[in-house]
Amino acid sequence: MHNGEAIVAACDQLAAISADEGQLTRCYLTPEHARANAQLARWMQDAGMQTWQDAAGNQWGRLEGSDPSLAALVLGSHSDSVINAGRFDGPLGVLLAIGVAARLNAAGQRPKRSVDVVAFADEEGTRFGTALLGSRAVAGTWDPAWWEIVGRDGVTLRQAFLDFGLDPERVHEAARAPESMAGYLEAHIEQGPVLEAERRSLGVVTAIAGARRFSITIGGEAGHAGTTPLTLRRDALCGAAEAVVAIETLARAAGIVATVGSLETFPGAVNVIPGEVRMSLDIRAERDEDRDRTLAAIRETCDRIGETRGLVWRWHETHAAPAVACSPKLVEALSTSIETAIGSDNVPVMRLASGAGHDGMAMAAVCDIGMLFVRCDRGISHHPDESVQARDVDDALNAMSTAVAALVD
Amino acid sequence: MHNGEAIVAACDQLAAISADEGQLTRCYLTPEHARANAQLARWMQDAGMQTWQDAAGNQWGRLEGSDPSLAALVLGSHSDSVINAGRFDGPLGVLLAIGVAARLNAAGQRPKRSVDVVAFADEEGTRFGTALLGSRAVAGTWDPAWWEIVGRDGVTLRQAFLDFGLDPERVHEAARAPESMAGYLEAHIEQGPVLEAERRSLGVVTAIAGARRFSITIGGEAGHAGTTPLTLRRDALCGAAEAVVAIETLARAAGIVATVGSLETFPGAVNVIPGEVRMSLDIRAERDEDRDRTLAAIRETCDRIGETRGLVWRWHETHAAPAVACSPKLVEALSTSIETAIGSDNVPVMRLASGAGHDGMAMAAVCDIGMLFVRCDRGISHHPDESVQARDVDDALNAMSTAVAALVD
Repeated sequence: MHNGEAIVAACDQLAAISADEGQLTRCYLTPEHARANAQLARWMQDAGMQTWQDAAGNQWGRLEGSDPSLAALVLGSHSDSVINAGRFDGPLGVLLAIGVAARLNAAGQRPKRSVDVVAFADEEGTRFGTALLGSRAVAGTWDPAWWEIVGRDGVTLRQAFLDFGLDPERVHEAARAPESMAGYLEAHIEQGPVLEAERRSLGVVTAIAGARRFSITIGGEAGHAGTTPLTLRRDALCGAAEAVVAIETLARAAGIVATVGSLETFPGAVNVIPGEVRMSLDIRAERDEDRDRTLAAIRETCDRIGETRGLVWRWHETHAAPAVACSPKLVEALSTSIETAIGSDNVPVMRLASGAGHDGMAMAAVCDIGMLFVRCDRGISHHPDESVQARDVDDALNAMSTAVAALVD
Repeated sequence: MHNGEAIVAACDQLAAISADEGQLTRCYLTPEHARANAQLARWMQDAGMQTWQDAAGNQWGRLEGSDPSLAALVLGSHSDSVINAGRFDGPLGVLLAIGVAARLNAAGQRPKRSVDVVAFADEEGTRFGTALLGSRAVAGTWDPAWWEIVGRDGVTLRQAFLDFGLDPERVHEAARAPESMAGYLEAHIEQGPVLEAERRSLGVVTAIAGARRFSITIGGEAGHAGTTPLTLRRDALCGAAEAVVAIETLARAAGIVATVGSLETFPGAVNVIPGEVRMSLDIRAERDEDRDRTLAAIRETCDRIGETRGLVWRWHETHAAPAVACSPKLVEALSTSIETAIGSDNVPVMRLASGAGHDGMAMAAVCDIGMLFVRCDRGISHHPDESVQARDVDDALNAMSTAVAALVD
């Protein structure tokens, strides 16, 4: 893991550990999970770390510091994947963390603080539908209600624990005392197109955006497409279309993101006026107040559209997560290290919010978090085409090593 | 059939002849079709008519005129239905035609021209997907390619003919010589809300609108709903929404109807930017040039949206029918009869285009056509809630009888 090329090669190697031949699918508490942990442990050991698997199945490695009274700096990401995944979402951050530890180790000088590397075992939630199980175990926010969740293979989380050789009664042992951690630092592919558009290899994350999601039903009146004049219609789709345009305009003005990803018409026939539309709304912002202010403006606009058109809007919130700010100290440390270790193309250092969720959201409950984004090809993620350039990974390794060296010394 | 109440009662009685218990479904060349023809023939005979079933399964009745050298005036509508239909779409026109004939017969004075009443056996196309089979047989525009069409029950049209006791080789015998018909007059429920909104029991149809239909695919780029800033998106739904709004605005300005009845997003997930949208467009106008001018403006707008947003539009035309004008002579005859026989609430007489298709579209190939619309409840049609008021049917019977008396004398 001494450079970008080696780290990309290790990501390729890890991608071969999959439930499916020819594509990457690696879920929590599966044989693939166990094989990936074993491989990661070998690489951690090669980097001079002691290794262990915790009570939730997360794989850890420790580069022991010289002063055991100091809290450890935790570096990592996750080792699980979505179905038919790319090779870098998760593993890149784990392998960069191992690379950073390897460098510290190779330098021969023991850092004051311990450097702990973690490969969280369930970030995506692919098997059980609930994300961040690995980091929530570590953060001590495990919910006992999860035990009865039935996974996509029909097995409960409890049974999956037992099958994997873990003891559900001992999951609390995975929780780490907040005072044992000086912070959590994660590198991750951006999963978006901003760094590419801004021609930067790296970006420092300021916050993980808080998302709210809604399922919206718009009720109008179906009717004959040929015989009902436009002035006598209550066309649910025309109202929905106005709303989609307004959502985009309002979100753009606020500098946040809002997305209608799914929209369906009912009855959905070529010659029938849509009597009902069902659509989704996903809205995210770096700061919850920006998100909620825009949301209020969207709802007001929808109400107005409803009044004008005689449509009835029903909103059902399906998800809500608060935004999580990154620690200013870690943001600063990463920014400074990019300036000193990389410079040129990356100065001034690009700072951006993460629109996607990450393990840091769980870890923020118990320690400072910081995140480094690595440019990826066209923002593609959760897809086999996910791709990073080895020289960008070089930049990440250099910047992160510099930041960590300063933070642990 | 001497008044509106009797005609509504007969529609109820006919509705009991159905393939399904408890709902009305009556398709072409089924046992229900045969039973309906038999019932209609009895009513025609009661009204003094000679009756026959033609080579395509249409039921006819004739009130013989005194001058056999004169072409007959044809009155009628259709006897088939959609699935789970209302009771009046089709049957009301057939029974009003029988009622008109019954009145002429009861008056005891033989008209100069014969009055022919027809119940077309397939207007809806419910069984074979192709509409107007009954009237196209009469108009002599039967297409031999239809024989191999497989109906929803897996039976070809050819086999269905044989099963019904008809000879496919003789379908041409159903065609009537153009010179044998002085015109075709049909009463039908409006299937729209205009007469109700304008507080008229009746309206005279000026034309049957010509519809064009398109299946439209809008190609953009899928992406992560959290990580892709709005400015870097090629969101197919945002483009489609702009188009839906523009379609409504342009059609409204032109005074025609255009409908996006079906719209679907792909992949259609709450957290994924729509990479593709598939939607339908149905556009109709009384005059083809108005429709096509608006369509050109719509396509221009879509092209502009596509350029601005980096979206690719693909249009596929799935249906095109020219508008069919009603005969000015028959429009005038119906209008005058409304003024003289009904008056008050219906003056000035309401003239409107039919947005829905009717047998007159086929009959127009061989004779003048005229249509009378009867107000229906909230424009509801193709639904069990389809409803008319007996006093509106009274008005229709009076107006049509007056018009027909003038036309056949």
